Amino acid sequence: MEISAVNALTYEEFVELFGNVVEKSPIISAAIWSHRPFKDLTDIEAHITEFIHSLSDSGKEGLLRCHPDLAGRDLQSGTLTRESREEQSQAGMTALDSAEILLMHRLNSEYKERFGFPFIICARLNNKADIVRRLSERLKNDRAAERELAIEEVKKISSLRLHNIVLSGIQTKL
Amino acid sequence: MEISAVNALTYEEFVELFGNVVEKSPIISAAIWSHRPFKDLTDIEAHITEFIHSLSDSGKEGLLRCHPDLAGRDLQSGTLTRESREEQSQAGMTALDSAEILLMHRLNSEYKERFGFPFIICARLNNKADIVRRLSERLKNDRAAERELAIEEVKKISSLRLHNIVLSGIQTKL
Repeated sequence: MEISAVNALTYEEFVELFGNVVEKSPIISAAIWSHRPFKDLTDIEAHITEFIHSLSDSGKEGLLRCHPDLAGRDLQSGTLTRESREEQSQAGMTALDSAEILLMHRLNSEYKERFGFPFIICARLNNKADIVRRLSERLKNDRAAERELAIEEVKKISSLRLHNIVLSGIQTKL
Repeated sequence: MEISAVNALTYEEFVELFGNVVEKSPIISAAIWSHRPFKDLTDIEAHITEFIHSLSDSGKEGLLRCHPDLAGRDLQSGTLTRESREEQSQAGMTALDSAEILLMHRLNSEYKERFGFPFIICARLNNKADIVRRLSERLKNDRAAERELAIEEVKKISSLRLHNIVLSGIQTKL
């Protein structure tokens, strides 16, 4: 998909295609449509980053809270977005044994209790062992540091989703 | 539902209940959860308003673009959120004859072409005749004035959805 084709999309087409580049936050793709024409994918990413960084601390936490747990309730009940399901699957979260599932649930609960938002890591760039290790380590951070780390992970996830859509031309939906 | 019960919700329960108070923008309810404990419904509304007003002009337009057309494609295809479907139904948008549907489509298209976001009006506070009249009138505004008017309508819609949930105790989902 050429950038000229992206720039030619109506806002409805743009949001249909890129609405879940940031998990459950179509407001972001819908907002950056105002900045067309885009020079390239890097330009689109820069506008997404600008939107995210413009949020207050509670706004950033809101963004984080729109994300599902890794190996959590939404995975078990089949209510993950398509993108999350694929990412969690690639990271081995769909093939955990019962002990691993219990461990993830315990660590996720501890994390949410401590920070008030879910543990987020770019699952495409981490395997199962990395995820458990980083989750255990990051539980020791303070809330502000963890919020910023999690936002950086959201940006990595978003970048990969964006590239995946444009390079493959497939459609993403909420 | 008492405000103490609202304040006792986890962020996951809060977003499940209030996630669509602003159409397809769970980030807003997820963000304002940080401001618990709330004094009352007016306090929750004030935080929603604060979030919306903190958005840049393109962010506000993004919020508007997350809304469906009145009597549009999502209504015809059954893909409206539950809240929108009920609101459009109450305003008579589900009982238009074919000439009225064509008129709405023509006016909505003209509006989107002119402003780059959909026509938004609080359907619970307007009947079919009001909607057609206001849509025709508002087409004459400039983009900045129309963006602000539409944001005021979003706040009315959000307020009614919030009160409806808390007073009835029913659940809303994306």
